[in-house]
Amino acid sequence: MAGPRQGDAPVIEICQFGAGRIGRVHAANIAAHPGARLRYVVDVDNAAAAALAAAHGAEATDAESALADPDVSAIVIASSTDTHVGFIEAGARAGKAIFCEKPIHLDLRRVDACLSVLDECNASIFVGFNRRFDPSFAALKSAVREGQIGRVEMVSITSRDPAPPPIDYIKVSGGLFRDMMIHDFDMARWLLDEEPAEVFATGSCLVDPAIGAAGDIDTALVTLKAESGALCQISNSRRAVYGYDQRIEVLGARGMLRAENRLPTSVEHATADGIRTDPPLHFFLERYEEAYKRELASFLDAVAGGKIFSPGGEDGRAAQALAEAAVTSFESGNTVRV
Amino acid sequence: MAGPRQGDAPVIEICQFGAGRIGRVHAANIAAHPGARLRYVVDVDNAAAAALAAAHGAEATDAESALADPDVSAIVIASSTDTHVGFIEAGARAGKAIFCEKPIHLDLRRVDACLSVLDECNASIFVGFNRRFDPSFAALKSAVREGQIGRVEMVSITSRDPAPPPIDYIKVSGGLFRDMMIHDFDMARWLLDEEPAEVFATGSCLVDPAIGAAGDIDTALVTLKAESGALCQISNSRRAVYGYDQRIEVLGARGMLRAENRLPTSVEHATADGIRTDPPLHFFLERYEEAYKRELASFLDAVAGGKIFSPGGEDGRAAQALAEAAVTSFESGNTVRV
Amino acid sequence: MAGPRQGDAPVIEICQFGAGRIGRVHAANIAAHPGARLRYVVDVDNAAAAALAAAHGAEATDAESALADPDVSAIVIASSTDTHVGFIEAGARAGKAIFCEKPIHLDLRRVDACLSVLDECNASIFVGFNRRFDPSFAALKSAVREGQIGRVEMVSITSRDPAPPPIDYIKVSGGLFRDMMIHDFDMARWLLDEEPAEVFATGSCLVDPAIGAAGDIDTALVTLKAESGALCQISNSRRAVYGYDQRIEVLGARGMLRAENRLPTSVEHATADGIRTDPPLHFFLERYEEAYKRELASFLDAVAGGKIFSPGGEDGRAAQALAEAAVTSFESGNTVRV
Amino acid sequence: MAGPRQGDAPVIEICQFGAGRIGRVHAANIAAHPGARLRYVVDVDNAAAAALAAAHGAEATDAESALADPDVSAIVIASSTDTHVGFIEAGARAGKAIFCEKPIHLDLRRVDACLSVLDECNASIFVGFNRRFDPSFAALKSAVREGQIGRVEMVSITSRDPAPPPIDYIKVSGGLFRDMMIHDFDMARWLLDEEPAEVFATGSCLVDPAIGAAGDIDTALVTLKAESGALCQISNSRRAVYGYDQRIEVLGARGMLRAENRLPTSVEHATADGIRTDPPLHFFLERYEEAYKRELASFLDAVAGGKIFSPGGEDGRAAQALAEAAVTSFESGNTVRV
Repeated sequence: MAGPRQGDAPVIEICQFGAGRIGRVHAANIAAHPGARLRYVVDVDNAAAAALAAAHGAEATDAESALADPDVSAIVIASSTDTHVGFIEAGARAGKAIFCEKPIHLDLRRVDACLSVLDECNASIFVGFNRRFDPSFAALKSAVREGQIGRVEMVSITSRDPAPPPIDYIKVSGGLFRDMMIHDFDMARWLLDEEPAEVFATGSCLVDPAIGAAGDIDTALVTLKAESGALCQISNSRRAVYGYDQRIEVLGARGMLRAENRLPTSVEHATADGIRTDPPLHFFLERYEEAYKRELASFLDAVAGGKIFSPGGEDGRAAQALAEAAVTSFESGNTVRV
Repeated sequence: MAGPRQGDAPVIEICQFGAGRIGRVHAANIAAHPGARLRYVVDVDNAAAAALAAAHGAEATDAESALADPDVSAIVIASSTDTHVGFIEAGARAGKAIFCEKPIHLDLRRVDACLSVLDECNASIFVGFNRRFDPSFAALKSAVREGQIGRVEMVSITSRDPAPPPIDYIKVSGGLFRDMMIHDFDMARWLLDEEPAEVFATGSCLVDPAIGAAGDIDTALVTLKAESGALCQISNSRRAVYGYDQRIEVLGARGMLRAENRLPTSVEHATADGIRTDPPLHFFLERYEEAYKRELASFLDAVAGGKIFSPGGEDGRAAQALAEAAVTSFESGNTVRV
Repeated sequence: MAGPRQGDAPVIEICQFGAGRIGRVHAANIAAHPGARLRYVVDVDNAAAAALAAAHGAEATDAESALADPDVSAIVIASSTDTHVGFIEAGARAGKAIFCEKPIHLDLRRVDACLSVLDECNASIFVGFNRRFDPSFAALKSAVREGQIGRVEMVSITSRDPAPPPIDYIKVSGGLFRDMMIHDFDMARWLLDEEPAEVFATGSCLVDPAIGAAGDIDTALVTLKAESGALCQISNSRRAVYGYDQRIEVLGARGMLRAENRLPTSVEHATADGIRTDPPLHFFLERYEEAYKRELASFLDAVAGGKIFSPGGEDGRAAQALAEAAVTSFESGNTVRV
Repeated sequence: MAGPRQGDAPVIEICQFGAGRIGRVHAANIAAHPGARLRYVVDVDNAAAAALAAAHGAEATDAESALADPDVSAIVIASSTDTHVGFIEAGARAGKAIFCEKPIHLDLRRVDACLSVLDECNASIFVGFNRRFDPSFAALKSAVREGQIGRVEMVSITSRDPAPPPIDYIKVSGGLFRDMMIHDFDMARWLLDEEPAEVFATGSCLVDPAIGAAGDIDTALVTLKAESGALCQISNSRRAVYGYDQRIEVLGARGMLRAENRLPTSVEHATADGIRTDPPLHFFLERYEEAYKRELASFLDAVAGGKIFSPGGEDGRAAQALAEAAVTSFESGNTVRV
């Protein structure tokens, strides 16, 4: 659901970098938003850029031209991970409002350098932690914020993909902790509402030996502990044959909140074998369809209203720092303080 | 769960009539109750009576002897329907407290004659409408009574057996409305908390043509309307392949209450085909196991405390009168006023 | 979710009649559909027409001009009920493909006259029974069609609004059976997959005496019986304080299917008082948001592909005929054969 | 539900040690079991022993006399933890079949000594890990054993009490890992079906500072890793205000199984605030009522049939060894290999 039309506010003209799967999601959401207009699409694959631009009345162009257009006030970066910092820094220098898919960069030092450039330019970025905008997770967080369960004591995050990505992707992904669990680290920080102080990580290669051969794991458990003593457990698997498994549970002093998976329909089929419902929505495009819309609307709303971007660059950095700590813990078998 | 021990109250000695399926349930519940003792079992099948008596430290005997024993203060009638009135009247004349399985008699005039005998003897009976004692239905009724949903506007009762009984049983059952739906008529009266004034019934033979050949139906819908205008719908089927389907829903001015089926376990099995739970508890012995215990405890509690029996003879009669009205409506296609 | 882009098929240009609440829903769906373009909006309220047209790049005009434009190949009628037949007949004479909100007309004879005009013009209409396109109801129907529960024996439809409409609306609505239950009659026909042969209706005024004073009821139960003996029960109330209650259940020879309400989020809140979830989606705009999109896509798909419209004019007529039979039954207390 | 009567098998006469809360549960289950008879009750509190014995037709006596009675073939130890090994060893020397509540002893070396005595006497014990007999957990385990989800990859165990025990109990309990999580360690071993090789534990005092002052924690997370790489996470809290929270989830290569909490009734209450169900069954006496019955029946069945006791002494020892490893890990912050 797009945000409300911005009164007499000018429509925000946007250049999007990236015309792949997630790029198509953002482009469609921009096009459907009454306060925004997709002006340019930039992609190394010219044909993909042209097709996506045509679908939404935009123009395929190159980065330089797009950033030079003073009518473009915001950029959406949905290109491959290694190109993020380049576009962020160029956008910052051109004075654009910046939305960037996670992660900023797989190398934390490069992230820091990028955040310094943003500082120098007095620019900021909105980092694409889409799960914060999932209606169920957002409602759960609101209830926590309102104190409905009192002080947070324990957070449990279950996050499992329906099937592993191709091995070629695994090889360049940075590994499960940096690539997959980074979303969960962000959820943990957001729900604990304080910084984890200790990280313990373990994991195995159980799903596909090829993943192990590529130096990665496919099944992992991480435990976080905050200074207050609040605890968090994260469970990841690259394979849940029943579908995309995305659940959150928060135990507090006065109650418990949990957000279960969403099912495509409410149909129940009863036979002598039992009562069967649908499996969960299959993967992130289905489960987070609404989250992506709300995320974009939140970015545009912040741009239009001059509000602080949240989640911002520091949130992106902090989640990555937890991923680095998890890697260190996994390799050593010991708790890592952050 | 048996009721609390009756302090210094003497243990109630009981003679039970009937050693069949439901008789075994009652006998075990009597034996397990701290305030009662199964003293005699009476059945035309002497071997069955002897076996059941032996299992619980009781004695098999004949009706006359049992009723002549002054130590026996209560009787439980769980024999075949045609023997109910005889045992009720004999029990009343012998001054016993009487628990009787529904129905009192299939012929409403004979019911009236029996209730007259009870009146003459200043005796009363507790009629075995076990569903009132189901923990879920009882909790729902308590919530209605406490006004949690305001004035009752619409009651929906779903009641379906897993499979039809043998044709020989169908032939002597009195038909679906008198044999099966009588429980639902009692639930309707209990939940509406007023007498239905109008009855409309329809039905079909869809499950087994042999049931139709025996002059009965196996699928039925009944609509009741009370003087206040409150409505009730009852849905019956002799076959629900997924198990015993026993649900209640009450819409009120300030909310809705419903009691869903109970499942044997809480296990969920998720695969790519969906998420599967158990089917409902299979049939009445499983679903109403606890209800039968609470029903007996309620009877014994009323006996020990000199309380009015509820549900009593008038409740038994009223449910049967609704069944008769349903038969008349079904045959005429018109609403019947009661 | 809009249907797939129609390849090289020309975009369908549409004139919409009606710029009210439901008109705004259809207009937005047309605008978002890649195979359609909202060309004109017609409404007696010129300002409303102009605003809605402006929001979607269309033009506000009068009916005559719009129908005279040969580029307009389809019309969507979402104006007040009394104007439906006029626009249908004009559209038919102009050779347009016609989508019309239910009902065609409150007077069944006028419906028949309108259907005759369509016949003469060799035109047909798509009637807006949106519930057939609800993802859950559509999935349930597919499962029935595929034989997953065997022969259909009993259909149960629960349909309750969160709160009654204004009394002024009640007065011109045609009454509960024609205005509200007509959707359920369509669902009954669709799910039984045969014509009901007998109708029995009862009802009461329980929610608001003003509704009774206006000659209407607000709470109703209807029972349908098909020639095959299959049964259907429909439960309507103008008030369910917990939200829009839209559920369907179908019992078959080999199982049961039911579609429960949809909740806005999957959040559960556990405290000592119990476990609380959201109430159902509040009303039809929320619950049927996706259904309206799929309904429009289905209409456009049929237009583009030259397919038969379903649900069509005969479906609209048949549901209304059941509503008339219900009124007759309600007034007489007897079963009405149709 | 008690096991089936043992044909012509002699009734097993039992001496029970302990007449406290859990002792009363076992005594009632023994009394209700057709294959067993409660012969003696032994307790340091003579009055408690006498009352419990009287309630079930047994005799209060001292340990020596009871163990000297050759008619007593089995003992049930439900006394305080520090007395377990004494009764176990005395029972073993007297040739009795032994059921003992967990733990055998808080000191693992004392456990080993006790197991040696059992070996010398050619005796064995059945250890009271009641959760294995919970109908839902047992059904889940059966499904795992039958391969319904393929190879086990990740086990998640949630185990939270409604409220902490008295501080005086905390002080002598051995601490959360030994006292509370021991049940979960047993569940982990049982569900993984292999021995955990690595243990990581963390925890906090969040519920009550007095627990911290007593040197204990009240909130804990433990991660286990088996040689195969299979993982397990355990979450414990001494306080869940919504009731006893006992859930299990097992992810496998071909699906996921989970056992949710059980609720007292199936009633749902819908208002504008949402849909509310009961909270979970309050505590272990309610939740595991059926488990305790099945556990006892399993013990008696093994005694009668000369079967191996399961869970046995080695299971008791292994769970305690994991608790010790957890304590070491918690104190060091590092993974402990077992």
